[in-house]
Amino acid sequence: MNNLLSHIENPYDLRKLAPNELPQLAEELRQYIIDIVSQKEGHLGASLGVVELTIALHYVFDTPNDCLVWDVGHQAYGHKILTERRTQFPTYREKGGISGFPKRSESKYDTFGVGHSSTSISAALGMALAAQIKGEFDKNHIAIIGDASIASGMAFEALNHAGVTNANVLVILNDNSMGIDPSVGAFKEYLTAIKSGKNPIENNVIKSLNFDYTGPIDGHDLEALVTELKRLKETKGPKFLHIITTKGKGLAYAEEDQLTYHAPGKFDKLTGKLIRDENENPAPKFQDVFGHTLVELATTNEKIVGITPAMPSGSSLKYMMEAFPERAFDVGIAEQHAVTLAAGMAAQNLVVFCNIYSTFMQRAYDQVIHDVALQNLPVIFCLDRAGFVGEDGATHHGLFDIAYLSCIPNMFIYAPLNEIDLRNILYTASLGLQHPIAIRYPRGKGTITNWKLPFEKIEIGKIRTLKEGKKYAVISTGTISNTVENALIKSDSPENFAHYHLGWIKPIDEEQLHHIFTKFSIVVTVEEGVLSGGMGNTINTFASKNNYKNKIINCGVPDTFIEHGTVKQLFEEVKLDTESFIKIFNNLNHD
Amino acid sequence: MNNLLSHIENPYDLRKLAPNELPQLAEELRQYIIDIVSQKEGHLGASLGVVELTIALHYVFDTPNDCLVWDVGHQAYGHKILTERRTQFPTYREKGGISGFPKRSESKYDTFGVGHSSTSISAALGMALAAQIKGEFDKNHIAIIGDASIASGMAFEALNHAGVTNANVLVILNDNSMGIDPSVGAFKEYLTAIKSGKNPIENNVIKSLNFDYTGPIDGHDLEALVTELKRLKETKGPKFLHIITTKGKGLAYAEEDQLTYHAPGKFDKLTGKLIRDENENPAPKFQDVFGHTLVELATTNEKIVGITPAMPSGSSLKYMMEAFPERAFDVGIAEQHAVTLAAGMAAQNLVVFCNIYSTFMQRAYDQVIHDVALQNLPVIFCLDRAGFVGEDGATHHGLFDIAYLSCIPNMFIYAPLNEIDLRNILYTASLGLQHPIAIRYPRGKGTITNWKLPFEKIEIGKIRTLKEGKKYAVISTGTISNTVENALIKSDSPENFAHYHLGWIKPIDEEQLHHIFTKFSIVVTVEEGVLSGGMGNTINTFASKNNYKNKIINCGVPDTFIEHGTVKQLFEEVKLDTESFIKIFNNLNHD
Repeated sequence: MNNLLSHIENPYDLRKLAPNELPQLAEELRQYIIDIVSQKEGHLGASLGVVELTIALHYVFDTPNDCLVWDVGHQAYGHKILTERRTQFPTYREKGGISGFPKRSESKYDTFGVGHSSTSISAALGMALAAQIKGEFDKNHIAIIGDASIASGMAFEALNHAGVTNANVLVILNDNSMGIDPSVGAFKEYLTAIKSGKNPIENNVIKSLNFDYTGPIDGHDLEALVTELKRLKETKGPKFLHIITTKGKGLAYAEEDQLTYHAPGKFDKLTGKLIRDENENPAPKFQDVFGHTLVELATTNEKIVGITPAMPSGSSLKYMMEAFPERAFDVGIAEQHAVTLAAGMAAQNLVVFCNIYSTFMQRAYDQVIHDVALQNLPVIFCLDRAGFVGEDGATHHGLFDIAYLSCIPNMFIYAPLNEIDLRNILYTASLGLQHPIAIRYPRGKGTITNWKLPFEKIEIGKIRTLKEGKKYAVISTGTISNTVENALIKSDSPENFAHYHLGWIKPIDEEQLHHIFTKFSIVVTVEEGVLSGGMGNTINTFASKNNYKNKIINCGVPDTFIEHGTVKQLFEEVKLDTESFIKIFNNLNHD
Repeated sequence: MNNLLSHIENPYDLRKLAPNELPQLAEELRQYIIDIVSQKEGHLGASLGVVELTIALHYVFDTPNDCLVWDVGHQAYGHKILTERRTQFPTYREKGGISGFPKRSESKYDTFGVGHSSTSISAALGMALAAQIKGEFDKNHIAIIGDASIASGMAFEALNHAGVTNANVLVILNDNSMGIDPSVGAFKEYLTAIKSGKNPIENNVIKSLNFDYTGPIDGHDLEALVTELKRLKETKGPKFLHIITTKGKGLAYAEEDQLTYHAPGKFDKLTGKLIRDENENPAPKFQDVFGHTLVELATTNEKIVGITPAMPSGSSLKYMMEAFPERAFDVGIAEQHAVTLAAGMAAQNLVVFCNIYSTFMQRAYDQVIHDVALQNLPVIFCLDRAGFVGEDGATHHGLFDIAYLSCIPNMFIYAPLNEIDLRNILYTASLGLQHPIAIRYPRGKGTITNWKLPFEKIEIGKIRTLKEGKKYAVISTGTISNTVENALIKSDSPENFAHYHLGWIKPIDEEQLHHIFTKFSIVVTVEEGVLSGGMGNTINTFASKNNYKNKIINCGVPDTFIEHGTVKQLFEEVKLDTESFIKIFNNLNHD
């Protein structure tokens, strides 16, 4: 069966096939993706949806000379398999293996690294304009972007610019009505109207922006795709092809439940049944602690609202959307809008929980400074997936937030110690802080199953003593404190170490720091974030400003991008694991 | 003549006028704006263009209960005058006076602070949804946004969301074909087609996003405006009114040269002649050093391109646009797109100078991290208006960039000492650094007139010794070093102080720092940026890491938003002025 695929190392091999062989290749490619992804965790639905498109693109265009830019990159598994990485493919998302996303350093076919959404049109246009300047007029540049991503502001900015150039850029809208969750917004409704024939495609939005528009066409019809792409290859200037695909195409259960099979984890490829680990950690995800607690708070406070930019499932805001649909907003992939919308609501005295992944908050940095902090509006930012995210890698780790938020006046920053602490800081923030606050917590699970205890108010700006000690002080922030605690227990002389949880990264507890720097000769700081500009830096500056001469050891993430791997592996890599801490503690004892 | 305006303290007074009195009020309001702005520096054209709209809005709507959000805020002078600030108006942009922009803390009529563009629809929608949740169904929320600002991605995100709500939000597109410079982009061409009647307004872009669209109507026709606004006041849900105005309306010379009269400085109100200071500093603006040097470099290197998001005049990229139009790009107010476009070009080996004001770079923070630094693409960011900008105030100061860029792996950061140093770092960067670099330089002029010297390559990562000394070290970065130099000369014992220019904020010159910390007991750091996460923090951490016990004094901007005033006043406020430095230096000598 796997006759064709096994002979294709690269697109040059592919282009030797006859057109009527392509459907079989699609079948084999789809099956190979299912075989591998069912055994590993990965992104299934998006890649299945573009099997035909991927083949058609590499068949028609002269890759890698012609440049493909896959938006977000969830859908690029087929592309990877057809471009010299078929045998490596089973290593995807493993430490040392290939990335789950296109990546320039991995292959010349990956012309631009992706991970965050809506960058593809800008990047492809940049390449197309570069080709023009270099006199390479026959070169093609193709952005493949989904309907959730194209509704993001950045994509619109790129379309708006492309439309006044004569650059050879082709935008392919892969319209499957889904991001991770279902797409939302007026533009999505507009696309739906086009698909259902309700909206004449004459004089449409895309044509209004000066694009040569064709579509919608069936994105699973290889013959139609090849024919149309051949025509577009010969058409100069900005072009737009609208194709309709089905996420999860070819797997009945994945087509039916597209949200689950976006990234299903391991599953039985015949039945679709998800395979769960028997020894699964019974603790809740931090996301669910957030989601359920918010519903609980919103039940008694009708001023509470929740906002997510396109992550209702990932963030668990879905619980609020179910319980209080009129007070919970999925605004689509629109972090900038999400933050200023939150500011507008807070200006009218609502209690706004704006949940954004740490890495995506980078998209709304100006809005946090200019619309929220400058006006000191008490928006409650819930920075999900702060710290390492694991297999999604460098594009998705949430390692910069402490640094980029600490420098903003008026901001409060809190990193909860565990599930109960997260619950209590959400409660505390809901009571009104007179300041914006960012609450950073990690992806996945902690250890506490009995987390749903009565609310307790957290005192603002106070360091908490986790453990007294005789000689040295360890100051840690957030859930990594539990690793530190564990390391202390296993170290040679736990009694020598006092351990403090610095939940409030801002404002800093100067009073307690004076106590610590007076009492202990050596201070160790620990944080799951970049060292540069991080909490440890703040402590260093505190010490410097107050002329403390204590030795300080800063533990955190070094000044380099950290690739993909399991969270455990990544902690080991940057020496934020139990063993590394034990070594530091024991070395201090032996000094 | 000034009969009506002098009796209007607030919109309640305005609403007592008969409709036929409004044109006279418009005349008086326009004249008052001209009287004051001609004597001071300020934003003229935008406010003149919306005189009629401003009157009509406050006449029809129940402000401040109904909420007006003025995008950017350049056009809000009339609004300020009509809302309890007529007599205060002449203090605008002065330290202690009213702000040049709407500001919540200044007036209940300023429902949302602005300064950066394209935030108004998000904010107004947030307010409108808040009203819905609170059951205030008759409340109106109005965003007034220009055609340059609405083409920015964030505005599209907000429209996309608003279109699927039934919130009472009215978006008024104030279409005058201008930002500061002429508007660009496909959407602008689309609007032009509508205005010229070439494009049927049925099935248009805005209607496609589910808005009740009316227009275009003449924005200087008070009767038409009042009639239409009354209709819209009674219409529920998302509404869009497209009005055509003339920037600078009512002043022939300002209508004719809209770019000059956007913010003309002082001028003769009769002739329009600009009044220049006789004692004007003969040195060039740093912007012109950038602009002319770029042209010079581009003349011999055909791979050089320049990008600006809507600031060709402000940044002086206009010189490159004139000299090499095919290699210079004004992408409109689209910082996100600008940065990823630059990354796409750099990925194809162009030498890309991407000029963005420091404060606006906050808009593209994720793109800098995710699209440029992560891929280590050698984009050359020119961060214009780093440091204090003066009268534009808190929204526009460029004080955070050192902090938010220092934490990004792969980034280089350089702050030139003066015009010649700026010229040479542009040259050095153009030769290829293998890393992205941000070059931060201030708004306005330095002191060197003879700046156009032969290019010299700057050694990467080296501290430069400006002056040897015996006892103390001062490490300063960027042009504020000249203030430090001046203060040292005037201090009691200049011979005691060594002075170093740390141009390379990243990578840091560890070798020279070891020398400094070994030789001098006290180290003073000086930077024109926030202390938190700034260069001084990096030095503190260097010292801490290497167990230096030297006393360190960090001079920089404290952790608070700094309001408007002259740059000189602001330096005094944060103690970054000559006198403050002299005090510090003399105190050290007397200790």
